[in-house]
Amino acid sequence: MAPVDPALLQDLRVRVGDALVTDPAVLAAHAHDSSRAPSEGMPAGLVRATGTSHVSAALAWAHEHGVPVSVRGAGSGLSGGAVAYEGGLVVALDAMRRIRDIDVANRTAVVEPGVVTADLDAAAREHGLFFPPDPASARWSTVGGNIATNAGGLRCVAHGVTADAVMALEVVLADGRVMRTGSLTRKDVVGLDLTSLFVGSEGTLGVITEATVRLKPVPEGPQPTFRASFPTIEQAADAVAAIVAGPEQPEVLELLDALSVEIIQSFQPTGLPAEGAALLVGQTAGPGAIERAESILELCRALGATDGHVSEGDDLLEARRLANPALTAKGLRVSCDVGVPISQLAAVFRGIDDIGAAHGRRVAVVAHAGDGNLHPTVEAGESADEIAAAERVIDDITRLALSLGGTISGEHGIGSVKRHELPWQLDEAALDVQRAIKAALDPRGILTPGRAI
Amino acid sequence: MAPVDPALLQDLRVRVGDALVTDPAVLAAHAHDSSRAPSEGMPAGLVRATGTSHVSAALAWAHEHGVPVSVRGAGSGLSGGAVAYEGGLVVALDAMRRIRDIDVANRTAVVEPGVVTADLDAAAREHGLFFPPDPASARWSTVGGNIATNAGGLRCVAHGVTADAVMALEVVLADGRVMRTGSLTRKDVVGLDLTSLFVGSEGTLGVITEATVRLKPVPEGPQPTFRASFPTIEQAADAVAAIVAGPEQPEVLELLDALSVEIIQSFQPTGLPAEGAALLVGQTAGPGAIERAESILELCRALGATDGHVSEGDDLLEARRLANPALTAKGLRVSCDVGVPISQLAAVFRGIDDIGAAHGRRVAVVAHAGDGNLHPTVEAGESADEIAAAERVIDDITRLALSLGGTISGEHGIGSVKRHELPWQLDEAALDVQRAIKAALDPRGILTPGRAI
Ligand SMILES: Cc1cc2nc3c(=O)[nH]c(=O)nc-3n(C[C@H](O)[C@H](O)[C@H](O)COP(=O)(O)OP(=O)(O)OC[C@H]3O[C@@H](n4cnc5c(N)ncnc54)[C@H](O)[C@@H]3O)c2cc1C
Ligand SMILES: Cc1cc2nc3c(=O)[nH]c(=O)nc-3n(C[C@H](O)[C@H](O)[C@H](O)COP(=O)(O)OP(=O)(O)OC[C@H]3O[C@@H](n4cnc5c(N)ncnc54)[C@H](O)[C@@H]3O)c2cc1C
Repeated sequence: MAPVDPALLQDLRVRVGDALVTDPAVLAAHAHDSSRAPSEGMPAGLVRATGTSHVSAALAWAHEHGVPVSVRGAGSGLSGGAVAYEGGLVVALDAMRRIRDIDVANRTAVVEPGVVTADLDAAAREHGLFFPPDPASARWSTVGGNIATNAGGLRCVAHGVTADAVMALEVVLADGRVMRTGSLTRKDVVGLDLTSLFVGSEGTLGVITEATVRLKPVPEGPQPTFRASFPTIEQAADAVAAIVAGPEQPEVLELLDALSVEIIQSFQPTGLPAEGAALLVGQTAGPGAIERAESILELCRALGATDGHVSEGDDLLEARRLANPALTAKGLRVSCDVGVPISQLAAVFRGIDDIGAAHGRRVAVVAHAGDGNLHPTVEAGESADEIAAAERVIDDITRLALSLGGTISGEHGIGSVKRHELPWQLDEAALDVQRAIKAALDPRGILTPGRAI
Repeated sequence: MAPVDPALLQDLRVRVGDALVTDPAVLAAHAHDSSRAPSEGMPAGLVRATGTSHVSAALAWAHEHGVPVSVRGAGSGLSGGAVAYEGGLVVALDAMRRIRDIDVANRTAVVEPGVVTADLDAAAREHGLFFPPDPASARWSTVGGNIATNAGGLRCVAHGVTADAVMALEVVLADGRVMRTGSLTRKDVVGLDLTSLFVGSEGTLGVITEATVRLKPVPEGPQPTFRASFPTIEQAADAVAAIVAGPEQPEVLELLDALSVEIIQSFQPTGLPAEGAALLVGQTAGPGAIERAESILELCRALGATDGHVSEGDDLLEARRLANPALTAKGLRVSCDVGVPISQLAAVFRGIDDIGAAHGRRVAVVAHAGDGNLHPTVEAGESADEIAAAERVIDDITRLALSLGGTISGEHGIGSVKRHELPWQLDEAALDVQRAIKAALDPRGILTPGRAI
């Protein structure tokens, strides 16, 4: 892209006033997200919207002048979706952070897109409610970003993904028009389901400027955590399948392979048990939570667990929370987000082992196991060659997941990082339909061009 | 439409062979659905597909020649979506009725679109699983029709709508191309969510030829039913709001107003209690189901219920099941499908009373109350004038629901019957986006033209 003509930027300033930021330090800080996607250069400006009208004016301007726009919540995304374009415009939503309403009777909240996930959850808890989506990034990520990526997290096994929590949206379309989707009722079948179309659309179809989301009542009583160690990851995977098929539905069900456990222990000892063993950690909630955790452990023992422990607090999840920083600190930095049907968990773990061995690289796996969603992370140096070599491992793991009936992305989305994998999963007709919808809604291709679709 | 040229029809016969039916009796039987939508004339032919290739060939033919196509499952729809076009083609899916797979470990089923809802449920129950969607039409409606209308039903209050049960689809696009959407994993964020776009699309974007759906484990133990009578419908509505907000989540929570109760009693006495009283009926399932039903009744009594009863069988739902035939038999024949947020239930009932009085017409209301979804049914003679007068009552009720934050359709969809109401709920931009997507996917406008969008 050629640099934006200064007169054009002046026109934008007339439309949005001080919301337009051109300070190079601010622009640089908003040019990348939390993924390994490389920077694509410096944007020409950033609109820090404080209301829908800023977003609308910014997109109308970009649409008129064909300026590429990146859309940004907190920038915690892991697939490159919020990376800025050289000479482009960044639309930043982090200043639109008001919780407009919490409706206790209907268990809904109306929020601006920049509200931090954990802040909404905390506000809901003051009314005995909670916000179900809980990506591990909840303390930074925004609700708008969660919706745009259809974020997952730890509680999905019990409460579903972000899509399940979204009822209605306000969206600014590529040409600046404002549209409302959905309704405040629990059921609504009125024309095409545009709400679902925008959930997970990664900034390619419009900018979400308000969301009405579902809240749930906080379950009464203790929410114990539990853990169990298994001699082999396959045994642990089979235990996951058995737990998911059983009556004691857990709130959280996570799996760490032996290498992850070892790395977490060496990063910050949290008193994890058996060396060389895979670790299942989870949580139960609601009626009989402690008994249900115990009975899950019994099932685990019957399936080969060498030890097991229930705690009334949520401390047993601490090791899981340390996984990301620990792996990065120890040089495991190239990760992916594949998913498989639950029945294929043991098979995918076995295959990942073989792939790591074939490439001669260590691969640690942390999984939202109850959903069949895995984050294998490959060891790599910092050089481009090293990253590329690790990405070849990821490609093999991804093809393996697909061969087992799986998906290339369970929760992080496509962005730029996984775009080359799209045709591995989607057929030609589906790719065509995606492109046709994109062209229909954003004919000039200004919104997050070249990503996700 | 001018009649289709016989040579064209011959070309279709070459493509689909004996699947093409032109017998006038068969065509007439497939020209309308179960709604009050008038017939639009006789179709030129019907393709009774026995496989995806028939559907693909039929749509490719219609696309080439610009022939309007209606898509039909069981024809139990209540909004006119499956009504045939004069000189058009009917694509009938009822012969594609194989259950291809029930995967117990992953709790999924793969079905052809013409499988009858109750048949899938019965097949799943042989494995201790069930199919959550349960429209009152489950014994006739097809799974494809349920998906195309995003059908609701009695168990939605506990298990959500059909959309929540759909994981992946095979769809034939307007030009005959075959596309797959979704994945077999519990989480999947790969490009735009085309699965959700086709759910509820009422035959306007493509024909569903296969679906992968979620099954759930049948809860252990008894599934008692309960009922409670209330002196006023507002008290009953407030009880619904309290139950939904409480800890004892029911499986089913239905409300019949005093007029419905009276009509059902005079149609077929089922031993219903108090005259002139509104009736709440429901069901609980899972751990402590009987105690939970009792505790729901206690709450009802505290909120004014004059009597209450729990039964270990599901007999207390019988009156609810008789509602449709009873109302029709007694001349209440023009119904609608509005929804409101739970907190507005009492207000909408009060308003419906006033509207009925203002028009001087009896209105009986049966509601999937736990979802805030109401089916008011207006008394009318059979003449066109009478129907039109009753439709004016429906229009007023619909505007009332919208003014309370509601929806024009909770579960039956738009079809032709509610199309004039679309702009009451959707803004200009949303209508435009719907049309743009329709034009992108069906540029010749052959699929269910002039309906739903
Ligand atoms: C340590 C760590 C842990 C994580 N754990 C999880 C996890 O458990 N589960 C999970 O799913 N993800 C996880 N993530 C990834 C990330 O946090 C999520 O994808 C999150 O939803 C992104 O939110 P954000 O506000 O940071 O969005 P951004 O990164 O700013 O943007 C993400 C995408 O959404 C688009 N977007 C953002 N806001 C809007 C809007 N208002 N309108 C339209 N488009 C918009 C952007 O254009 C971009 O394509 C993790 C990330 C980190 C760094
Ligand atoms: C007595 C009675 C009770 C009812 N109770 C309920 C209820 O409780 N809840 C509820 O939601 N509905 C209810 N309905 C309405 C109706 O049964 C549902 O809408 C049902 O989902 C329609 O299924 P069908 O197979 O009969 O579809 P049809 O009536 O044949 O078609 C309905 C729509 O779906 C489209 N369609 C059908 N199959 C496909 C396909 N394979 N691909 C693409 N499009 C397709 C058609 O074009 C049409 O627009 C009831 C109807 C009756 C008569």
